[in-house]
Amino acid sequence: MTTFREQSPSTGPGPSSAPFLQACAGGTPERVPVWFMRQAGRSLPEYRRVREGVPMLESCRRPELVTEITLQPVRRYGVDAAIFYSDIVVPLKAVGVDLDIVPGVGPVVAEPFRTRADLDRLPPLDASHVPYVTEAVRCLIAELGPTPLIGFAGAPFTLASYLVEGGPSKDLARTKALMYGDPALWRDLLDRLARIAGEFLKVQIAAGAAAVQLFDSWVGALPAADYRALVRPASASVLGMVAKAAPGVPRIHFGVGTGELLADLGEAGATVVGVDFRVPLDEAARRTGGRHALQGNLDPAILFAPGDVVDARVEATLRAGRAAPGHVFNLGHGVPPGADPAVLARVVDVVHAWAPGD
Amino acid sequence: MTTFREQSPSTGPGPSSAPFLQACAGGTPERVPVWFMRQAGRSLPEYRRVREGVPMLESCRRPELVTEITLQPVRRYGVDAAIFYSDIVVPLKAVGVDLDIVPGVGPVVAEPFRTRADLDRLPPLDASHVPYVTEAVRCLIAELGPTPLIGFAGAPFTLASYLVEGGPSKDLARTKALMYGDPALWRDLLDRLARIAGEFLKVQIAAGAAAVQLFDSWVGALPAADYRALVRPASASVLGMVAKAAPGVPRIHFGVGTGELLADLGEAGATVVGVDFRVPLDEAARRTGGRHALQGNLDPAILFAPGDVVDARVEATLRAGRAAPGHVFNLGHGVPPGADPAVLARVVDVVHAWAPGD
Repeated sequence: MTTFREQSPSTGPGPSSAPFLQACAGGTPERVPVWFMRQAGRSLPEYRRVREGVPMLESCRRPELVTEITLQPVRRYGVDAAIFYSDIVVPLKAVGVDLDIVPGVGPVVAEPFRTRADLDRLPPLDASHVPYVTEAVRCLIAELGPTPLIGFAGAPFTLASYLVEGGPSKDLARTKALMYGDPALWRDLLDRLARIAGEFLKVQIAAGAAAVQLFDSWVGALPAADYRALVRPASASVLGMVAKAAPGVPRIHFGVGTGELLADLGEAGATVVGVDFRVPLDEAARRTGGRHALQGNLDPAILFAPGDVVDARVEATLRAGRAAPGHVFNLGHGVPPGADPAVLARVVDVVHAWAPGD
Repeated sequence: MTTFREQSPSTGPGPSSAPFLQACAGGTPERVPVWFMRQAGRSLPEYRRVREGVPMLESCRRPELVTEITLQPVRRYGVDAAIFYSDIVVPLKAVGVDLDIVPGVGPVVAEPFRTRADLDRLPPLDASHVPYVTEAVRCLIAELGPTPLIGFAGAPFTLASYLVEGGPSKDLARTKALMYGDPALWRDLLDRLARIAGEFLKVQIAAGAAAVQLFDSWVGALPAADYRALVRPASASVLGMVAKAAPGVPRIHFGVGTGELLADLGEAGATVVGVDFRVPLDEAARRTGGRHALQGNLDPAILFAPGDVVDARVEATLRAGRAAPGHVFNLGHGVPPGADPAVLARVVDVVHAWAPGD
């Protein structure tokens, strides 16, 4: 079941009994586990220090930097899982797509994808494309001890949106135009991206990641019927590759604004459904039919409220999370760059002080 | 019932029998009425021509320009309603808030709202603050003949978000921090904004607007429970002011990403609930309990798809709209600046060719 244990170079007790993995498996560990999406990042002064002068994509290719950045929030907060420091476009860059991350803008693709010929720019990925990932994950496993490491990849729809738009977009109009206008090309594009994302996750698992999260950040922009017909099969393919290679490794699947899609995210093959802050966890449990552990979902904006409001909202989230078969506490979106680390530390304390039976 | 008729300076047949007003009232007119949010705007070459060199807020204060811009899409498309050309921040500027609309950025407030003392910067609005609105509406009524004019205002939450953030924001963190951190100040702020928005709509109705739309653009960023407790009362106050002053004037209420809030938007006192493109209209009819006419909800991204896809999606929207007691066809969000006017014209043709019994 716990494939990762066999593959983990760690000689310690291993993370198999970790509260995070127990909750992912639908159990009720002694405490509710907590980590934060984007916990390794700009909100931390120690992150800003080590990133100084290092461009984003370069930082993802330096194993010692990836290791340090991934460990920072674990050290500071005592969170129950580490998330591999990477960027959603790293595997695309690794197979040769000409793109960069422009500060204040986001990923910019030199030649956006538009036609069938563009598919040739997406060859399959294997471990040899990303030796720095394997090396960083191995270092991390050795350092993390019993704390599980979550591998990370962007889902086909969200990857496609970056490739097709070429840069930031509010409405994903070009992506949708391709999706609705040339469904055959769209399917082939998503199929290539699914294989890249699946392999990227498998590389991380092979090196020791104990769980994975597949981010479909922008898929909330789609009506459910279109998601089901034109996107879910590709996400299912990614999650299926992971399940086949490492059946015991939990698969978390998350997107922003996906209240209408929660059941479908589960159906795509997730073990754990990540929930946006707009839908309370008890309602999310209902929508996912009680078939999946849930991850979430404190509104990140609450981090800017007074302490007593933070505490009350964290506790309300924990109470609602009881409806789920397994609850991993998280925010309902990434940590905002302006968040105060002291408030995040407070959240961890409140979650850890909570008795699951409270 | 049709207060606007008494107030309208038009001597023609008046818009009371207009398909748009019939649908708003829950009826089934001879054809499904259609208009587009942001139909008057950047997608039209004739708009770009008349706006050349004229800053946004100045254009809203020139009655002859407002009249021309409002009429442009009616002339070009033969849509079933005109929407008053204005901006959500116009009434704030009119009562003296120091703000401007920066091209490519959006509304920027010189001194963002943070404390109780800031409330003094929001005195009540009356018709004398916006003579250019009264004049423009009167001109429009004379020009429009039987085509109804929809008045326009931003709802208290969305207005507050601009005032508190001071500029564009992805996560409305400061707005939410104020809302969660100082609910008493928040309520007083929304109360002032409700009175301003309500009066702004009443000015438009007094001059002849036949319907109003209250835009709560960003309210989809809130969980439903918070919307209900901290926002809905203020929106209800705006819609209540309109209902009291002009009970026969339909009140449309819309926000982006409000799938979780549709019933609440109706409960706030809307006649017609505007539906975002993420929720099919038949499902929206279910969520609003069949108590409201619905407006919407073609995904604007579909405008960039091939013609046969556009046609099929328009027809699917029309079919789903049959579940609503009254359907006003619209997009599920504003017209994108890059949309092709020829495609919008095609949408109008398909809607108008559709027999409601098809």
